[in-house]
Amino acid sequence: VSLITLNPRPLDRALRERAASVLPGGVYGHVAADLLWPGAPQFVGRAEGAHFWDVDGNEYVDLMCSWGPLLLGHRHPAVEEAVARQHGLVDCGNGPSPVMVELAERLVGVVDHAAWAMFAKNGSDATTLCLTLARAHTSRTTILTAGGAYHGALPWCTPVACGVVPGDRAHLAHYVYNDLDSVLAAAETHAGDLAGIVVSPFKHDAGFDQELPDPAFARGVRELCDRTGALLILDDVRCGFRIAYGSSWEPLGIAPDLSAWSKGIANGYALAAVLGAERVRAAAASVFATGSFWFSGDAMAASLATLDVLEREDGVAAMQAWGRRLWDGIEAQARERGVAINLTGHATMPYLTFPDDDDYALGELFAAVCAREGLFLHPRHNWFVSTALSDTDLDVALRAIGCALDAVVAAPGRVAALDG
Amino acid sequence: VSLITLNPRPLDRALRERAASVLPGGVYGHVAADLLWPGAPQFVGRAEGAHFWDVDGNEYVDLMCSWGPLLLGHRHPAVEEAVARQHGLVDCGNGPSPVMVELAERLVGVVDHAAWAMFAKNGSDATTLCLTLARAHTSRTTILTAGGAYHGALPWCTPVACGVVPGDRAHLAHYVYNDLDSVLAAAETHAGDLAGIVVSPFKHDAGFDQELPDPAFARGVRELCDRTGALLILDDVRCGFRIAYGSSWEPLGIAPDLSAWSKGIANGYALAAVLGAERVRAAAASVFATGSFWFSGDAMAASLATLDVLEREDGVAAMQAWGRRLWDGIEAQARERGVAINLTGHATMPYLTFPDDDDYALGELFAAVCAREGLFLHPRHNWFVSTALSDTDLDVALRAIGCALDAVVAAPGRVAALDG
Repeated sequence: VSLITLNPRPLDRALRERAASVLPGGVYGHVAADLLWPGAPQFVGRAEGAHFWDVDGNEYVDLMCSWGPLLLGHRHPAVEEAVARQHGLVDCGNGPSPVMVELAERLVGVVDHAAWAMFAKNGSDATTLCLTLARAHTSRTTILTAGGAYHGALPWCTPVACGVVPGDRAHLAHYVYNDLDSVLAAAETHAGDLAGIVVSPFKHDAGFDQELPDPAFARGVRELCDRTGALLILDDVRCGFRIAYGSSWEPLGIAPDLSAWSKGIANGYALAAVLGAERVRAAAASVFATGSFWFSGDAMAASLATLDVLEREDGVAAMQAWGRRLWDGIEAQARERGVAINLTGHATMPYLTFPDDDDYALGELFAAVCAREGLFLHPRHNWFVSTALSDTDLDVALRAIGCALDAVVAAPGRVAALDG
Repeated sequence: VSLITLNPRPLDRALRERAASVLPGGVYGHVAADLLWPGAPQFVGRAEGAHFWDVDGNEYVDLMCSWGPLLLGHRHPAVEEAVARQHGLVDCGNGPSPVMVELAERLVGVVDHAAWAMFAKNGSDATTLCLTLARAHTSRTTILTAGGAYHGALPWCTPVACGVVPGDRAHLAHYVYNDLDSVLAAAETHAGDLAGIVVSPFKHDAGFDQELPDPAFARGVRELCDRTGALLILDDVRCGFRIAYGSSWEPLGIAPDLSAWSKGIANGYALAAVLGAERVRAAAASVFATGSFWFSGDAMAASLATLDVLEREDGVAAMQAWGRRLWDGIEAQARERGVAINLTGHATMPYLTFPDDDDYALGELFAAVCAREGLFLHPRHNWFVSTALSDTDLDVALRAIGCALDAVVAAPGRVAALDG
C-alpha cells in the first residue's frame, strides 16, 4: 500500500457525512464517491471556464468537463448571454418558443443525415426514443447493441441490472464492437425482426481501453441496415461535437438513420436531441414523446450559442489540437520514465490505463496525484477536452501527469489517501 | 359548425410552417398543436408571473402554468435570485454542489414519509426509478397501475403505444382508480410477485372527468402493501405542492413508501425527485440511477427557493383559496346561464367539461373563446393554479369564462377558428 499525502478536505468530508443520511449511499450515479478514487473531491464549490474548485477551495484544471457537457468550459460568455436573453422572455412556457424551431433548423443544417429534430432532457431520453422510433418505423422489435456499451441508465440499458426485470431487455441482442461478423450473426438470429442497430461512434465503455471504429465495420453495419430495413442508430450522446462538427461518423462517410445527442450540445444546460433522416419522419410524428421541460427555451438558446461559438472558432479543431498535444505529452513523459501505458480513445476524449492494472491500483494512484497537483481526470472513464483549455492549462496538466507518473514509478501499489 | 372570430396570429402561423419541416408533425408531445384547439396559440413569445404573451403579442392569464411547473408564476424573484447565486458558482459540475445535500435535507424535513431523496430531470425519470426501486427492494416484478393513468412517456407508460414492444409492459397489471376490489383482484392474480402499486393522488387522466380519492381506497391500498410487502408508490409529479405542503396523500393520513416528484418542485427549472421511506434506502443505494444533468445545481437552488416561498407565504393555501374562488365563480356563472357543466378535480387543478360533449366540440368552443378573451386553459386536460394569480386575474378569468359560456349557450356545435 502506497501512502500519498492529499490536500485536506474537511468541508468535503462534512458534506459527505450529511449526504450519507439524506441521499441513499451518499451521492449516487456516475459521480458517486465510490466510483471516484481515494481522496477525490466529491462536491464542487465553484467553476469557471476550464477550472473548478472543490468545496475546500482546491483548484483543478478540468479534464472531465462534467463528464462531457462542457464543450466550451463553464459559463462561456456567448452562451450565458443567449440564455439570459431567452430567459428574460420565457424558459418553461405553455408551448415552445421560436428558439425551438431555430435550433431544429440549425441542427438540420449542421448534421448531414438530419432532416428533422426532436428534443428532450437526458441522453437516455434520446437513446430510448431512437429505439421506439426504430420499432415504430419497422414494426419490428429486436434492437442490437454492443455488449458492454453504455447507452444510458434506464432499465433497458443500465449497466447495473438491480431492479431490472426480464421484459426490460426481452427484445435486445448484442454484438461485439468492431466485429462485423458478430453483428451479422446477431442479425441472422433475428432475421425478419431486426428494428435497429445501436452503435457508439467509438468503443468508449467505462473501465475498458477504448477502440476507434474500424471503417469496414461501420460500412458493414450501414450495408446490413440498408439490406434489412433496420435503422442505424448512432449514439452520439458522449462524442457529439468533439469528433466532428456534425455526427461523429461523418469523417467515416457513414450516415446513420437516427442519432442521439445530449451532454455537450447546450454546453452544460440540460438538453438532449434525436436527429433523424427523412425516411423516419413519419414514425417520429406518430410516437408520443414528451416531458414537462422538453420545450423549455433556455437550453435551446444555449445550444444555438454553443453551435455559433464552435463554428466561429472552429472549436472541434481546437479541441482536437489541444487534445493531441496532451496525448503526445503524456506519451513522451511515459517514454522518458519507461512507464508502460495504454493511452486510447480519441484526442478529445483520451483514456489512460496501465497494463495489468486490473484493480486500478496504479490508475487510482495516478488520478490521486494528478488531483493533488491540480488536474482532475478519472482512472476508469474517458476524459473530455473543452475549448476553454489554454496553453497554461496544458502546462499544468502535463506537469501534474509527470508527477503522477513519477509516483507510479516510485511506489506502485494500491494508494491509500491520507489527508495532509 | 360555429364560427368564432379569433385574434389573428400571423407570426404563430409562420412558425408552424417552419416547424412542420424540421420537427416531425410540427411540434410534438403534450404541447402539440393537434392536442390544442382551433385557433390556440402554439408558440410562446414571453411570460411574466401569471401572464404570457403568444408570439403575436396576445396576452393571456395563465391557467395552465406550463402544464404544471409554474407554482409561483414565471420568474419569481426569490427563485431567480437563488438560481443566479448558484449559477455564479456552478451549475453542471464534475460532482454535485452542496445545494444537493441542502435540498435533500429540506425535502426530508418537509415530506412526512421521506427519509432520503434522489434527483433526476423528468417526471418519467422519477416514476420509472420508483418501479426499479420497488423491484429491487422486493425482488419481485409485477407493478400495478390504474388503467388510463398517466405516469410519463417512456415505453412502459406512454399513452400512445406506437413503437412499444411487448416486453415494455410485460410485468404491469392494472386496476380501476378508487375501486379497491379491482386492486385486490389484481394483487391476487399476481400474489407472490407484487413489487409495487402506483397511485395518483387523484384520478387526473387527461380527457376524463377527474375523481378525488376515496379515503377507504387509499387506506385499503396502503393495507394491501403492508400485508404483501409491495411498495406503495405515489405519483406526485403533477399534484406535488398544490394539494399539500408535503405529499398529496398527507391530508388523507396515508404515507407512501416512495413518491415521484417533478413539474412544480423547482418552479419551472428541470428537476425531478424520488423521495423514499427508510426501508427502501438499501435498494435505492443499490440501483444505478444517473443522468448527465441530474446533479446540476441551478434547478436545486430553484427548488429550495420555491419551498422557501411556499412556506413563507403559505402558498398551498393561497392557491387553494384562489382556485376555490374560481371554482365557485364558474359554477355560479353556469347556473345563471342554465349551462350544465362537469367541474371536477381539485381546487388547484380544476377541469371543466360539458355533459355528452364526447367530441369536445363545446369544450373547444369554450377554450377558444376563453383564449380570445385573454384566458389560457385546456379542454382536455386539467388546469393548474399558481400563487402568482391575482384578484384582477380572477376577474379577467371569470369574465372570459362568462363570454365562453355565453358562446356555448348561443352556438353549440363544433367551432371552426376564423382569424380576425
